[in-house]
Amino acid sequence: MKALLIVAHGSRRAASNEEVQQLAERLAQIQSGSFDVIDSAFLELAEPSIPDGIRKCVDAGATEVIVLPYFLSAGRHVAEDVPELVDEAKAQMPDVEITLLRHLGASEALADLMLQEAGA
Amino acid sequence: MKALLIVAHGSRRAASNEEVQQLAERLAQIQSGSFDVIDSAFLELAEPSIPDGIRKCVDAGATEVIVLPYFLSAGRHVAEDVPELVDEAKAQMPDVEITLLRHLGASEALADLMLQEAGA
Repeated sequence: MKALLIVAHGSRRAASNEEVQQLAERLAQIQSGSFDVIDSAFLELAEPSIPDGIRKCVDAGATEVIVLPYFLSAGRHVAEDVPELVDEAKAQMPDVEITLLRHLGASEALADLMLQEAGA
Repeated sequence: MKALLIVAHGSRRAASNEEVQQLAERLAQIQSGSFDVIDSAFLELAEPSIPDGIRKCVDAGATEVIVLPYFLSAGRHVAEDVPELVDEAKAQMPDVEITLLRHLGASEALADLMLQEAGA
């Protein structure tokens, strides 16, 4: 079983965190069945943490967890903090295949999407 | 003449701000000619500011400026700070048609892009 975990920064504003969880739910609805579980987790300021989010996926039956950092810029959070927490989860759950993807902002397709948004 | 201004939060980390400017340059390269100018500006911590970025577009000949907030979540920055600065620019440049788009995170196509990134 395969899970997708969307990892966002986390906000003091509950509505922002709920927005991320709603996005995970939306992905679960529109996906074509590649993932058995799609959930969200937060780097800081909100729950669940990244290791807890990965564990939730595993508790739901996942043997493979794909982690997608929902960040636009490759700052310290993307370069250091998220990988450290993913490594921590890997150490805690050595039997689970955990893959950290590049952050969303690194996607080449984002530029096309932006032009589309701008009506170009 | 029409300009697209990508507005990001801005970072203390110069590389993050340069990444945004490089994205603006990439958009300029791949677009099909809808915009005569594509540039970037920052809410805080980096230059140019939003009003200065709009003015740069106008100085380059733009009579219409489309502002795209490069933000994933609709927090206070998106809901209040960016609109206030855009309004300030509108008051300073009443002859320029300035349009503030919704933030990037509001795009429905982003969900598809995320699934694509996740290999779904």
